[in-house]
Amino acid sequence: MSVPYKIEAMEEMLVNSSKGAPTKASDRIPIIAKPFVSERAMKLLDVVEKFVEEECIPADAVFQQQVGTGTETRFSAHPPILEDLKKRARELGLWNMFLPKNHFKEGAGFSNLEYGLMAEYLGKSGVASEATNCAAPDTGNMEVFAKYGTQEQKDRWLKPLLEGQIRSAFLMTEPEVASSDATNISLTMKKEGNDYILNGSKWWSSGVGDPRCQVYIVMGKTDPSNASVYKQQSVMFVPFDTPGITIHRMLSVMGFDDAPHGHGHVTFNNVRVPAANMCLGEGRGFEVIQGRLGPGRIHHAMRSIGAAEKALEWFLARINDPKKKPFGKQLHEHGVMLERVAHSRIEIDASRLQVLNAAIMIDSKDAKFALKEIAEAKVLVPDMLLRVLDRAIQAYGGAGVSQDTPLANMWAHGRTMRIVDGPDEVHALQLGRNENKRGEFCLKKINWQKKRSEEMAQSYGLQKRDLLQLDRKWSEKSKL
Amino acid sequence: MSVPYKIEAMEEMLVNSSKGAPTKASDRIPIIAKPFVSERAMKLLDVVEKFVEEECIPADAVFQQQVGTGTETRFSAHPPILEDLKKRARELGLWNMFLPKNHFKEGAGFSNLEYGLMAEYLGKSGVASEATNCAAPDTGNMEVFAKYGTQEQKDRWLKPLLEGQIRSAFLMTEPEVASSDATNISLTMKKEGNDYILNGSKWWSSGVGDPRCQVYIVMGKTDPSNASVYKQQSVMFVPFDTPGITIHRMLSVMGFDDAPHGHGHVTFNNVRVPAANMCLGEGRGFEVIQGRLGPGRIHHAMRSIGAAEKALEWFLARINDPKKKPFGKQLHEHGVMLERVAHSRIEIDASRLQVLNAAIMIDSKDAKFALKEIAEAKVLVPDMLLRVLDRAIQAYGGAGVSQDTPLANMWAHGRTMRIVDGPDEVHALQLGRNENKRGEFCLKKINWQKKRSEEMAQSYGLQKRDLLQLDRKWSEKSKL
Amino acid sequence: MSVPYKIEAMEEMLVNSSKGAPTKASDRIPIIAKPFVSERAMKLLDVVEKFVEEECIPADAVFQQQVGTGTETRFSAHPPILEDLKKRARELGLWNMFLPKNHFKEGAGFSNLEYGLMAEYLGKSGVASEATNCAAPDTGNMEVFAKYGTQEQKDRWLKPLLEGQIRSAFLMTEPEVASSDATNISLTMKKEGNDYILNGSKWWSSGVGDPRCQVYIVMGKTDPSNASVYKQQSVMFVPFDTPGITIHRMLSVMGFDDAPHGHGHVTFNNVRVPAANMCLGEGRGFEVIQGRLGPGRIHHAMRSIGAAEKALEWFLARINDPKKKPFGKQLHEHGVMLERVAHSRIEIDASRLQVLNAAIMIDSKDAKFALKEIAEAKVLVPDMLLRVLDRAIQAYGGAGVSQDTPLANMWAHGRTMRIVDGPDEVHALQLGRNENKRGEFCLKKINWQKKRSEEMAQSYGLQKRDLLQLDRKWSEKSKL
Amino acid sequence: MSVPYKIEAMEEMLVNSSKGAPTKASDRIPIIAKPFVSERAMKLLDVVEKFVEEECIPADAVFQQQVGTGTETRFSAHPPILEDLKKRARELGLWNMFLPKNHFKEGAGFSNLEYGLMAEYLGKSGVASEATNCAAPDTGNMEVFAKYGTQEQKDRWLKPLLEGQIRSAFLMTEPEVASSDATNISLTMKKEGNDYILNGSKWWSSGVGDPRCQVYIVMGKTDPSNASVYKQQSVMFVPFDTPGITIHRMLSVMGFDDAPHGHGHVTFNNVRVPAANMCLGEGRGFEVIQGRLGPGRIHHAMRSIGAAEKALEWFLARINDPKKKPFGKQLHEHGVMLERVAHSRIEIDASRLQVLNAAIMIDSKDAKFALKEIAEAKVLVPDMLLRVLDRAIQAYGGAGVSQDTPLANMWAHGRTMRIVDGPDEVHALQLGRNENKRGEFCLKKINWQKKRSEEMAQSYGLQKRDLLQLDRKWSEKSKL
Repeated sequence: MSVPYKIEAMEEMLVNSSKGAPTKASDRIPIIAKPFVSERAMKLLDVVEKFVEEECIPADAVFQQQVGTGTETRFSAHPPILEDLKKRARELGLWNMFLPKNHFKEGAGFSNLEYGLMAEYLGKSGVASEATNCAAPDTGNMEVFAKYGTQEQKDRWLKPLLEGQIRSAFLMTEPEVASSDATNISLTMKKEGNDYILNGSKWWSSGVGDPRCQVYIVMGKTDPSNASVYKQQSVMFVPFDTPGITIHRMLSVMGFDDAPHGHGHVTFNNVRVPAANMCLGEGRGFEVIQGRLGPGRIHHAMRSIGAAEKALEWFLARINDPKKKPFGKQLHEHGVMLERVAHSRIEIDASRLQVLNAAIMIDSKDAKFALKEIAEAKVLVPDMLLRVLDRAIQAYGGAGVSQDTPLANMWAHGRTMRIVDGPDEVHALQLGRNENKRGEFCLKKINWQKKRSEEMAQSYGLQKRDLLQLDRKWSEKSKL
Repeated sequence: MSVPYKIEAMEEMLVNSSKGAPTKASDRIPIIAKPFVSERAMKLLDVVEKFVEEECIPADAVFQQQVGTGTETRFSAHPPILEDLKKRARELGLWNMFLPKNHFKEGAGFSNLEYGLMAEYLGKSGVASEATNCAAPDTGNMEVFAKYGTQEQKDRWLKPLLEGQIRSAFLMTEPEVASSDATNISLTMKKEGNDYILNGSKWWSSGVGDPRCQVYIVMGKTDPSNASVYKQQSVMFVPFDTPGITIHRMLSVMGFDDAPHGHGHVTFNNVRVPAANMCLGEGRGFEVIQGRLGPGRIHHAMRSIGAAEKALEWFLARINDPKKKPFGKQLHEHGVMLERVAHSRIEIDASRLQVLNAAIMIDSKDAKFALKEIAEAKVLVPDMLLRVLDRAIQAYGGAGVSQDTPLANMWAHGRTMRIVDGPDEVHALQLGRNENKRGEFCLKKINWQKKRSEEMAQSYGLQKRDLLQLDRKWSEKSKL
Repeated sequence: MSVPYKIEAMEEMLVNSSKGAPTKASDRIPIIAKPFVSERAMKLLDVVEKFVEEECIPADAVFQQQVGTGTETRFSAHPPILEDLKKRARELGLWNMFLPKNHFKEGAGFSNLEYGLMAEYLGKSGVASEATNCAAPDTGNMEVFAKYGTQEQKDRWLKPLLEGQIRSAFLMTEPEVASSDATNISLTMKKEGNDYILNGSKWWSSGVGDPRCQVYIVMGKTDPSNASVYKQQSVMFVPFDTPGITIHRMLSVMGFDDAPHGHGHVTFNNVRVPAANMCLGEGRGFEVIQGRLGPGRIHHAMRSIGAAEKALEWFLARINDPKKKPFGKQLHEHGVMLERVAHSRIEIDASRLQVLNAAIMIDSKDAKFALKEIAEAKVLVPDMLLRVLDRAIQAYGGAGVSQDTPLANMWAHGRTMRIVDGPDEVHALQLGRNENKRGEFCLKKINWQKKRSEEMAQSYGLQKRDLLQLDRKWSEKSKL
Repeated sequence: MSVPYKIEAMEEMLVNSSKGAPTKASDRIPIIAKPFVSERAMKLLDVVEKFVEEECIPADAVFQQQVGTGTETRFSAHPPILEDLKKRARELGLWNMFLPKNHFKEGAGFSNLEYGLMAEYLGKSGVASEATNCAAPDTGNMEVFAKYGTQEQKDRWLKPLLEGQIRSAFLMTEPEVASSDATNISLTMKKEGNDYILNGSKWWSSGVGDPRCQVYIVMGKTDPSNASVYKQQSVMFVPFDTPGITIHRMLSVMGFDDAPHGHGHVTFNNVRVPAANMCLGEGRGFEVIQGRLGPGRIHHAMRSIGAAEKALEWFLARINDPKKKPFGKQLHEHGVMLERVAHSRIEIDASRLQVLNAAIMIDSKDAKFALKEIAEAKVLVPDMLLRVLDRAIQAYGGAGVSQDTPLANMWAHGRTMRIVDGPDEVHALQLGRNENKRGEFCLKKINWQKKRSEEMAQSYGLQKRDLLQLDRKWSEKSKL
């Protein structure tokens, strides 16, 4: 990647994007969010945008070419361009921006809101998150190690993770149960002396395909008879090469294998793990996953917003392509297209505000005080992304579903966002249930208002007029 | 309205609404908006909520009863309860909150954002806006007088308007042309000596039904042959009792007549208006309406958000009504209901952030720098409101479309919001067109990225692999 | 209505509608339905269309003018134009077409399918159904009398109903319970000697506003302790002037009162009804309503399809109105409009086929064998109608919600169609539940197919390839 | 595939599917379509269902395993299971059912409607269409040969195609132009002596990946300066191994390569084709493609309906899987699921009727008289399919997007259906434009009805009441 390029070309383009006025990422922060963004974050945000647009997006196709063909090849090599990008990112000061400053000293010192703004740009490229060591599931896993790990665990796993030397996986979902309800998780963890013996199977174990993935954070059942289903579950750190672990196969996502990262189907057959690898303590699995998921959902959501912005850019590019003139007019001259552009713009902007508000809520206290806001973002954003992508795909016709645009891959990825970390329905139901707690109050209030209204009417000497008048009429009618 | 009531009951309810933690309107301001809200506005916001919930909403039905029956009656009397509410509002310090502090000294000293937050609560009652002298179209009209009026005009109309003594109307839309494009406005204003002679007809002249409506702000064509269609239009202040003006009839909205306010169909037959009543100057009509519409759209949008919150409250009340148990379960136990509650919650919250962001944008400079944000709110909010209302109506069944809930009337009003001040399609097209200006840049950027990607691939020694391999295979196939 | 008019003008228009080829209603019957339509029905269908387009639609506004103002007036007079139209309809042979020939000799001898085709056209006018004595709720009520009535009951009520001399109402829904589940109906019918004593209240009693409405078919509870909730309910014929019946007030529908028909809120206070007025027998209420509702839903659905066609015609008229040219182009030249026209066309046509199929299903055996098809039509059609109407309203702008087009009233009526005879949700749930009966079979079949697939793979000597390959790779990776 | 299996198991399941009553495909034909289906077709339809459910669907996974890995392998081998299935199909009398009896003697003697019913079942399996020699694009291509081919062309290509010995491709779409408007096709065909010289490139050339694909039907420009853009285009038959043809690469569809069929990107570099290979004659390209596309769209649509039925079956299987119990209840007990099942049922059934009606329209005369009906099906069906699939995917969670269910692949295929043979937008616009031809008539009719209405009102002595009353009131108001 030593090839020189004219950076000015890109800058000039950026400058001209809004007909004169320079617009950089920092200029485009919604005005309502600005009070929450430091000068330092604003500056770095512009570096992120430049890095993503000029180096990462062009690298995406190279990465794909370097992955190779054949299942074995695809999941045993690691594209060299990524290591080059990582070096470049560190030079630019783009590293570990995700670790929120109010909780962790190991990060780059940004708030969730500030990192969220950066994550939007990272979401425009398939390689940018990893290039800046901000890729899932490592981000959430690093939070787990930093928050709950012993010093030894930190030295062994957190350090190399923070350095981008190894990768990690989070093994929760299982093929045989309804994992959308995590109390169903059934991999067994049986105490035997100073070890636990793990038996069961996991799937959608994202990242296990990568040859550098060295540690699995595994959820399982230590105490199946505990009266509280929540306390039955525990989380352990499991070295990837512990005997008894088999990666059966890799799952595909709408036809994409996401190599070399991959989504594995993994079985545990009498896997012996030292008790010292227990995270936080037996029966505290739910505590671990709840602390982990909040910020991660914000990261996903902001990356999805970046993806939507990219989709809109491709959409705009297509409808302004002078070579594409069906029925004698460019596509942007066909009425339906601009309306779709407008709705995309509106939906992206509203979603972004939603996510930023959730991020600030997390920053202000903790993720557990932002459950509503996080759930809202979790449900709203992927749906929005898929709509925007669908419009762009449709404008491209065949090219839109093919490998010639990034849209199909983005759609596949976006579609899973409605499923991972719990399907929409689970979050909506949870939201609905919380909101419904107000139900009794609303009923009381409305009844109070009705009663008050009647009192007011009486104080003005008003009678319920509809009742009387019709009674009167009716007696006459009866004679007909 | 001298009837005493136990305010404590209400307060207790409010306090208990979130199971323990007291929630007042000021507590519910989205965290992202808080930096923009002064202590003073927060305090008044809580007064607004209390006033609306405890006095205005109960007054709504009384207002309707006082309007009376029969077209003549409905449009010639003015419900006395409103004057009582106005007195009460002034006592509480709730008056003219709408006039933005950075432009007008006459108002209560709040920003658009701050007033926006209050407008949300005003939107929960049909009488609250007028009770606080914040009702359309007077608000926009007062802005026009304050911004462009001469001292004489201010004394004659702005002063009594600010005092809530008279009301006003804005006459733009016409029955015979496509008014969604204001250059089509065709009422003629012909100079004749020191007067203009007005001929033409207007409709959707909202407020002309009210016997206190004393001044019409009228748009018309002074210079039909001007090369610029925008400069053909002017705006004049016309006293309501100028000879030649006839209110033909009142229009209904989905069956509601909105008496005594009403939406008039008005004809001008040689109506003579002094040239001194010209606003700003001949040909400056577009300047006037553009300055007027921005904040007004924010007010509408925030009131619509309040309406949506109210609809959600009624929805929640219904599905928790112990008397309503179809198929043995309360409605909230039927799965689809809570999902609808959740989606309503999400959509309302996202819309609110959108509008607040637009309000801050206006506050930061001027409405004309916030065109995108205002248009986004204009399109997004009514659509959201109608969806939330529809779900609530459906939960109520027959009661939902009847006079027994406020939902039907709110729906009718909400439906017009997709039309007034320009239909959705016009705003979406405008938004789409603006966004499309980026099209050429996007095309250039993507092409630049593709080229850069190819250079990178070459620097890694990669070849376009798919091309070669298939050629090879094909020669073999030919032999089949 | 003795005013002469040039019928040729209309005919000429009809002929020219498809640019040359004459299109009459009979020409527009979907080809798939034609084998089910007799020559006689085809001919009458064309008469129906002509009568509706030329006499009924113009009469709609006259009817409204004749209803008068003021609650008392509105619900005590009967517009004379309707009697004139009825005379005219009988002259044309348009009378009682609804009574299906395979069940009743009293009707005009058409099948449900044939009448359904006619009902579509009747649905384009507010007065056409009554003008041809095919108006709800009389149609369903006449079916009840014809099917279950004694000779005496038939003489007293069916005869004058068939002659269009009196009208009737069906009182089922109650304000205090969730009536979407009819087992909740709670008006009491207590046996006392040879009478039943009725106590309770009903609402949405459609038609009670009409001074000619002489009989109520009332559902209530005779046996509240019956183990079967279905057998608790009975149906009785109640003369409207029985002492103890009070019509409290009339309900409005989205602001419309539907006078003089109206939707009443009626109370029963010790209303004494002779036991001879029991329909079918105690505890057979569900039997009565189930037999009644099937065909009625088809009638409603077909009328709604006619309404949708009318909405589309108004839509087309607007976008081709040369006076309406926003931004220099007629509305049909704005891209979004034709797309909306197309989707309206598609949705109307698909819905019609659905309803016709249901009608044929009823004709082939009985309504109870067509439950699925009827429910499908019940859910699909109103939703379609509202979408088509919404697009038309939006094209009209202000006029669309006002009294100047029929669209607002049609929308209000269409909206109730999602509620009356059970809300969408109840029908969808019932449909879903029935469909779900196949669930176990589907699971079995798919598992059988999977197993069979594995056997086939073995017979070809294929191994599960993904499993092995990844295992191999992994051992190598471990060494990294 | 010599493995024996207990066919009874399957039959027993089919028999039990509707709790007692045996349901076979022929029993499930919508009643409205039955008059159009011969006894012979009904019988064969049941054979089709059995063949698909018991042999083809289990074969789908085997086919995928036999395709192999690596681009070269994937597009040069042909899975042997397909030849076995073809033998089996011929034994069962399932061969060439697609060629409509009223036009071609070579087919199995069914109407488009009859074949459409069969195509629904073929659409439930990836291999069934080819197994019965009813696969696109061969079906359309065979129609072209049969309709327009010379005897020599028929002998060379139609015969082996009808026997299932070779396959064919249709090359129309081009990468460099907006092919949704076929007048843009720009591959040049230049006359040179007795040959044409072809230059240009094509993509989405479906089927060129198959090693048995021996003939390309190619559209191109013979007369670029013809005043009629339609007459510029011609269609030629081109042997696949003509020098100068290169298959550059294969396109993927949402990550799937559809091997070995595939979608090729093909270039023509001075490809010399004998003039005798011209189809119909120079400049008649549009004639050829229009005759070809109608029935093909019906086939696609009916297969899509089968796919939707299959998706619904998988959906039902999942929500009744006893192993999947989130939050203590099976999925079908969660309210939203049954509602989604119901809407799927409704939408599938309505779409099917739409397509069957279009098929009958084609059968009655010719595809060109069924343009409206075909376009309606083209737009309605894929949208429906995607919605049903999306609901099923969501119920499966991760499994839904993976290779473990057929849903992801079906979604990818379904998504392209909104693009191939012209994107939705083109068909909707065309439909809208045709419908809009009625616009002028509608405007006239409505105006006539309004005028007639006024005349009627006068004949009853009615005055326009709203006008007068308000005028009167106003003079009083002026005095306020």
